[in-house]
Amino acid sequence: MDTLRLFSGRANPELALEISQILDVDLGQISIQSLNDSETHVQIEESVRGAEIYLVQPTCRPVNETLMELLIIVDAMRRASADQITAVVPYYGYGRQDHKSTGREPLSARLVADLLANAGADRIVSVDLHAPQIQGFFNKVSDHLTAVTTLANHLRQRDLSDAVIVAPDVGRAKLAEKYTDILGLPMVLMHKRRHGVGGSKLEVEAVVGDIEGRKPIIIDDLIASGSIHQQADTLMEHGAQPAIISVTHPVLIGQATELLTRPSIEEVLVTNTIPVPQERRAGGLITVISIAPLLASAILRIHERRSVSEVFSQQNLLFPV
Amino acid sequence: MDTLRLFSGRANPELALEISQILDVDLGQISIQSLNDSETHVQIEESVRGAEIYLVQPTCRPVNETLMELLIIVDAMRRASADQITAVVPYYGYGRQDHKSTGREPLSARLVADLLANAGADRIVSVDLHAPQIQGFFNKVSDHLTAVTTLANHLRQRDLSDAVIVAPDVGRAKLAEKYTDILGLPMVLMHKRRHGVGGSKLEVEAVVGDIEGRKPIIIDDLIASGSIHQQADTLMEHGAQPAIISVTHPVLIGQATELLTRPSIEEVLVTNTIPVPQERRAGGLITVISIAPLLASAILRIHERRSVSEVFSQQNLLFPV
Amino acid sequence: MDTLRLFSGRANPELALEISQILDVDLGQISIQSLNDSETHVQIEESVRGAEIYLVQPTCRPVNETLMELLIIVDAMRRASADQITAVVPYYGYGRQDHKSTGREPLSARLVADLLANAGADRIVSVDLHAPQIQGFFNKVSDHLTAVTTLANHLRQRDLSDAVIVAPDVGRAKLAEKYTDILGLPMVLMHKRRHGVGGSKLEVEAVVGDIEGRKPIIIDDLIASGSIHQQADTLMEHGAQPAIISVTHPVLIGQATELLTRPSIEEVLVTNTIPVPQERRAGGLITVISIAPLLASAILRIHERRSVSEVFSQQNLLFPV
Amino acid sequence: MDTLRLFSGRANPELALEISQILDVDLGQISIQSLNDSETHVQIEESVRGAEIYLVQPTCRPVNETLMELLIIVDAMRRASADQITAVVPYYGYGRQDHKSTGREPLSARLVADLLANAGADRIVSVDLHAPQIQGFFNKVSDHLTAVTTLANHLRQRDLSDAVIVAPDVGRAKLAEKYTDILGLPMVLMHKRRHGVGGSKLEVEAVVGDIEGRKPIIIDDLIASGSIHQQADTLMEHGAQPAIISVTHPVLIGQATELLTRPSIEEVLVTNTIPVPQERRAGGLITVISIAPLLASAILRIHERRSVSEVFSQQNLLFPV
Amino acid sequence: MDTLRLFSGRANPELALEISQILDVDLGQISIQSLNDSETHVQIEESVRGAEIYLVQPTCRPVNETLMELLIIVDAMRRASADQITAVVPYYGYGRQDHKSTGREPLSARLVADLLANAGADRIVSVDLHAPQIQGFFNKVSDHLTAVTTLANHLRQRDLSDAVIVAPDVGRAKLAEKYTDILGLPMVLMHKRRHGVGGSKLEVEAVVGDIEGRKPIIIDDLIASGSIHQQADTLMEHGAQPAIISVTHPVLIGQATELLTRPSIEEVLVTNTIPVPQERRAGGLITVISIAPLLASAILRIHERRSVSEVFSQQNLLFPV
Amino acid sequence: MDTLRLFSGRANPELALEISQILDVDLGQISIQSLNDSETHVQIEESVRGAEIYLVQPTCRPVNETLMELLIIVDAMRRASADQITAVVPYYGYGRQDHKSTGREPLSARLVADLLANAGADRIVSVDLHAPQIQGFFNKVSDHLTAVTTLANHLRQRDLSDAVIVAPDVGRAKLAEKYTDILGLPMVLMHKRRHGVGGSKLEVEAVVGDIEGRKPIIIDDLIASGSIHQQADTLMEHGAQPAIISVTHPVLIGQATELLTRPSIEEVLVTNTIPVPQERRAGGLITVISIAPLLASAILRIHERRSVSEVFSQQNLLFPV
Repeated sequence: MDTLRLFSGRANPELALEISQILDVDLGQISIQSLNDSETHVQIEESVRGAEIYLVQPTCRPVNETLMELLIIVDAMRRASADQITAVVPYYGYGRQDHKSTGREPLSARLVADLLANAGADRIVSVDLHAPQIQGFFNKVSDHLTAVTTLANHLRQRDLSDAVIVAPDVGRAKLAEKYTDILGLPMVLMHKRRHGVGGSKLEVEAVVGDIEGRKPIIIDDLIASGSIHQQADTLMEHGAQPAIISVTHPVLIGQATELLTRPSIEEVLVTNTIPVPQERRAGGLITVISIAPLLASAILRIHERRSVSEVFSQQNLLFPV
Repeated sequence: MDTLRLFSGRANPELALEISQILDVDLGQISIQSLNDSETHVQIEESVRGAEIYLVQPTCRPVNETLMELLIIVDAMRRASADQITAVVPYYGYGRQDHKSTGREPLSARLVADLLANAGADRIVSVDLHAPQIQGFFNKVSDHLTAVTTLANHLRQRDLSDAVIVAPDVGRAKLAEKYTDILGLPMVLMHKRRHGVGGSKLEVEAVVGDIEGRKPIIIDDLIASGSIHQQADTLMEHGAQPAIISVTHPVLIGQATELLTRPSIEEVLVTNTIPVPQERRAGGLITVISIAPLLASAILRIHERRSVSEVFSQQNLLFPV
Repeated sequence: MDTLRLFSGRANPELALEISQILDVDLGQISIQSLNDSETHVQIEESVRGAEIYLVQPTCRPVNETLMELLIIVDAMRRASADQITAVVPYYGYGRQDHKSTGREPLSARLVADLLANAGADRIVSVDLHAPQIQGFFNKVSDHLTAVTTLANHLRQRDLSDAVIVAPDVGRAKLAEKYTDILGLPMVLMHKRRHGVGGSKLEVEAVVGDIEGRKPIIIDDLIASGSIHQQADTLMEHGAQPAIISVTHPVLIGQATELLTRPSIEEVLVTNTIPVPQERRAGGLITVISIAPLLASAILRIHERRSVSEVFSQQNLLFPV
Repeated sequence: MDTLRLFSGRANPELALEISQILDVDLGQISIQSLNDSETHVQIEESVRGAEIYLVQPTCRPVNETLMELLIIVDAMRRASADQITAVVPYYGYGRQDHKSTGREPLSARLVADLLANAGADRIVSVDLHAPQIQGFFNKVSDHLTAVTTLANHLRQRDLSDAVIVAPDVGRAKLAEKYTDILGLPMVLMHKRRHGVGGSKLEVEAVVGDIEGRKPIIIDDLIASGSIHQQADTLMEHGAQPAIISVTHPVLIGQATELLTRPSIEEVLVTNTIPVPQERRAGGLITVISIAPLLASAILRIHERRSVSEVFSQQNLLFPV
Repeated sequence: MDTLRLFSGRANPELALEISQILDVDLGQISIQSLNDSETHVQIEESVRGAEIYLVQPTCRPVNETLMELLIIVDAMRRASADQITAVVPYYGYGRQDHKSTGREPLSARLVADLLANAGADRIVSVDLHAPQIQGFFNKVSDHLTAVTTLANHLRQRDLSDAVIVAPDVGRAKLAEKYTDILGLPMVLMHKRRHGVGGSKLEVEAVVGDIEGRKPIIIDDLIASGSIHQQADTLMEHGAQPAIISVTHPVLIGQATELLTRPSIEEVLVTNTIPVPQERRAGGLITVISIAPLLASAILRIHERRSVSEVFSQQNLLFPV
Repeated sequence: MDTLRLFSGRANPELALEISQILDVDLGQISIQSLNDSETHVQIEESVRGAEIYLVQPTCRPVNETLMELLIIVDAMRRASADQITAVVPYYGYGRQDHKSTGREPLSARLVADLLANAGADRIVSVDLHAPQIQGFFNKVSDHLTAVTTLANHLRQRDLSDAVIVAPDVGRAKLAEKYTDILGLPMVLMHKRRHGVGGSKLEVEAVVGDIEGRKPIIIDDLIASGSIHQQADTLMEHGAQPAIISVTHPVLIGQATELLTRPSIEEVLVTNTIPVPQERRAGGLITVISIAPLLASAILRIHERRSVSEVFSQQNLLFPV
């Protein structure tokens, strides 16, 4: 395994370190600085000529910084004659800007994929993209992993006798079905419903399916501002028990942690695609499950030219599961 | 409007003719033949030098034939010095192969977009793609229209007092929400549910939401083999009235028409993105609504350099509505 | 030879199998289906990560199907991280559409080359292209082999004492010269001649050179509809013996086999670039010579990084010989 | 002038406004937001179909934000069918990372040019790039203007009888020569000199040329951290009068303004390629000269398909002057 | 016709001038110099912003000079914002290197087409390419004209009662057929024939068809070293009258003119795709027919967005006729 | 080191031979001819399939010939399946045409980089480019070496007690600083100075810094026509000793050697990036230092996948030093 080389940007060095420990390789030496004129400066501090590079950098907040840093490192690797550059991007920023909804908008998720290819990335490894089609925005090789099985395995430690999987909006129905498949639970769907033919402004949170007395497991790909607390409240108003929330990407903006700290929410399960400092975990409300084993395993299989899809799809580790 | 030039491939000449009548332009002269060695031969029979071309060709069955024909015509137009080539592809074949589900699969929906760009298409106009992200597979200008409003307007002529919108699987929940928004109706979600933790083989068609005594409007983007009849039957078993089915693309393979002719189905609404010969309409069961006005309007606005998104998104004609 | 991997599309599995037996490698597992909506679906059923792929698929009739199938398999291979993908395309469909003859035509032979590169093919191996320049349409590595030597070696078993090589039209004069070079025979040229200055419609089949009492070997790159029987008849009218016909690609459309069964034709030699089922061989009139040894040898040399041109051009196996 | 359309990003709206007033066109309506997850979201609020777009956005601090914003707007414009997109980038961030100095570094100035082309920019208008060769990094049309003449014209209002132009390091000797050409003044060159054969660490600021009793005009392309104060001090130690500093781009990081406020510096002339708020102008020490007339004039000539180079090079407005 | 702009490189200014006179436009001002270090330096001396450029430059001897000059001018035009650049290349150097004949050779004809596209040419107008497929090497718009009709019309002024068209080798049989079509004459084919099975070294010039007492019109696409005199001699030895030679491109290397001055040759007809100075015309033996009217007509039709193929193919001015 | 393969074009075979001797590898067999119609014809005479190619070809005079030859060889190598092609271009012709100085000029240095990438070069090794940014014109891997250290080491053998480094114009100030760094000498700058505000035509050669009684070492990247003799004369007029001239590239056009033979010049040091025949060395005035060791060392490190930058930048062999 002499040429596997693992590097980390500055977005999530803890995750990269954990992967390096599992793989038993040292993290590559690289100097990354923000110059005082705000430019990012990169210097790779060891030879990468002919090497196969795995570069861990979720493009999480501040996304324009982490993304440009990723592009610049890839450019530096390519110009330093790296042989194959795999961008391991556990959280893919701009993933929600994946289609034009009203015209005259950018398609930023596609733009990002093109920028990465343009800079020189040969492959992308990603986790739970907002839509599986985003994989097709990058026109080289990609592996789309899922953390759903990792999260679901953890959920099995809870009492699931009354549990239902709740899709908090129509866009997440497909993800919810994956949880129901793995855990054998029924589904409930929530959606914004506008009353009055033609779509008046009167909007209510509709709950489709039986929730009364059940324990809701509200699932999502990410928590950003924490607005999912509204769904938890609505469910409780409909007679549900306090909810468990299970999401892959803890974006957690602004008052998100505070908003999640409420009677209608019992626990929040997330992964470490994005770092969550201890002080933002609301005293144990938020549990962080590591996906380092998942990523390490994928990197190892890629590096050894073994199949990723075979084992991973048997184990429900490939998205969609 | 002197340079708007409308051409048709052989996939849906009736639709192209209808558009040409609305726009009051003649269809361009073009000779397209299948040579007896099975190659497609194209000869454009009038000068297109410097012209702005709109080429109507859904890539419907037989998809490999209609797609290659489209690519070859685009190539001929480009080499004949056409100025701007818009492929009007109301039905986008291979749209469902939009992500890798188990590894080692092609991403044919992306491949098709690349082949079109490679042949020389400058713009694509499409209708109700299987996923809105497919728009992002084509890296030039695209307009993604929807027939949902056209279909919903037609549905308003029915008695909708007990009606509910039914998403026949989790992947269609988003499309169902569009119908509920326009028609102000509640939603019901169906999905395949596997019982037993870990996903045993025992699978039932779960119905999430209230259906008893209601009139289901089952929506979808396309009907292929007609397997949607199972959902209609299941709903009736759950106490629903006979269903109205409303879909954009009438792919209608094999025994589809026969399968749809059953007590649980009252009516099937489709558009003419794909031609449906009179004899396959099951004696009036299938009603075909024309989207020629929608496409003609989009072509005209594009040609006149006016906004498509503005008017169209106000009128819910842009996907997603 | 551990990473040489041979796969076959559905166009000519017998040829692929024969090559695999010569090379003593198993054919790779791949599932290719025509879905009932006419789309082609491909699933590679073994890992190809890092492998060197040789994919046998002549783009013969139905050409749009075999070509799209080839493109989709290449796309799947590329996305599954194959290292190097060689498309072995013994018959190159659309090869005759290699230049614009009257303006406003596609250049389909070039389009096909670009589509292959676009899908991800790194190299093409082809046999007796309609014009050697087509090799230049594909801008990556290509090997252009010839079956002329294989056919000529077989012809040597016949009595060639009175034989002449006949080019059935001006476009084949160069190919005819190759046969004369290998077999040491004189040449006769046929061409359509229009009488009257300015090109009146009166056209006769002119025979340039001595044919009376000779045994004509009419050569061509392919037989499609079998119109070559006219040349055989004309030669007989000019006093020639019954002809042997020697062509590389047995396209054999419609009534071709029947048309070739006539007194003026003694035998038809073809190769198996395109499969010819036993029942279409006109009871022994058509003899099929295998080019599997030629292709196997080229694949092996490519795979072992040995020169193809050196040995092959010495042995007259490279086009032009 | 009906289709000239001027838009501004958020980096320097004052400059864009000034240009719009000179050209007497309204700034286009566009909504640009930083979402609270740090993503940039853009919505163009008027139709740009078929329009010729001029988009003013220096990629100044915070450069990763302003650059990504520029890329995203260009992407949105392109997908909204703008006809021609000119990025007016008066300050080009990452311009100093224009070559690899020690190996294993990115070439960020080239990367940025490629990202811009990749996003869809057809043309770049820039001012006083760090090296004129950067123009060649962008492989489409570009216009490289200079503010040197604008600044020099302003300097003529000062008493220049004893003045000398000072290049603060060897990299600026060429720029200094431009000033000497326009103003007819002698030159002095400063450079870091290491003593001892082989380059020991002992480094002094060498002054090449006569400075005693002269008034130095220290020129540069940009002031970042304000380290140029060292050169002013050194010159004063060598007997020079207090210096005038004349630079194009006021990057002005951190304590730059404070550092410039010292006896050895009499005045600092800059342009408004980057905004300098009133409070950072050190009570009049820093004079800001507008380049809006220069940019407006270039935009107008480009839009009217008139020559930029002809008039501009006569007037010394093209870089290099 | 206000934006048609005609420029000339240094390869054939007389031809460009003639075209400009027919079109009644001035030749554009451009300075082209060979610097004394052998680099070519170009300066366009008038604004071409937004203009449609027609640039006349056959890539004749010295081909590397004329080709690089063409590439550099195209690059300059593109960077000066020309709107559309048409390279009018009446003689296409490297056209004979259009396929690999023995492996390990370049495909220079394709390389040249790619270099032209890479530099920025949008369209190529060429005349009588060595093979019509070369048109397909350039992947943008191209027009392939023929001088055969122009030459044939001139030949009609001769006494053609005993004339035959002679293809001097198998590669020219197709071109010969065009002459026979236009002039209604029989054909004779010459080719190198190797005697002895297997291709021994004994080679004779075989004459296929009747030549005794006939007047041969030997046709070719170009005369380079004048080796065609051997065919004329051979024909005379076979009893033919002195030959007329009719070729498009007078490459005329070394002693070509002297070699052609012999009893077996009566006249040599060429066009002015390449300049032939008076002193190299062998005292009237070589007649030069101008193709300026052909090129002027094509340029005018292209510029006015009228069909080239329609009129030209009716008039046999498009290759292949 | 079994696959390192070294080839030479015809521009500097002596240098290639010297490198091959140092590396102890044979030069690859290749036939390169100028056909008598002036086309370059290349045939690689040994298999290069899968090999790593190093191709030595400075693009020196006649630059259009040497450059086209380089492009054609690269094309041939690529089509012959070479694995990795490194163009070793010690002198990069057209390097001085690296920016547009007055508009409407080509950017030939960029054009050349694109042509090389287009032909198929994967990497460029160059020496002392006219500007370091030119490295960024080539968008693949490049190594930019410097001969300054090699030259400076040779200068150390001279008596440098009174020596100063002279930059002959402002563009060379940076290069001069490199010499001062290595040799620990002071700098003098010369530049053309126009007197009178506004830049009148009266121009004198200004000398900035102390030169009286000193021994000037005038440095430059290249000597072309030998105009540097003017600077030597000027310095002597200002009281300097006879000069040593130290430049990397001996372009040496026309009367250059004669012009350099004068009292103000004591010695001229150059390298062998371009061959200098013995008779042009002015009887010992010109000393040629070989850079073959530098290039051999770089090639070896590249081939062995070892770092070039590390060792080379420590040893001041990377540009800029």
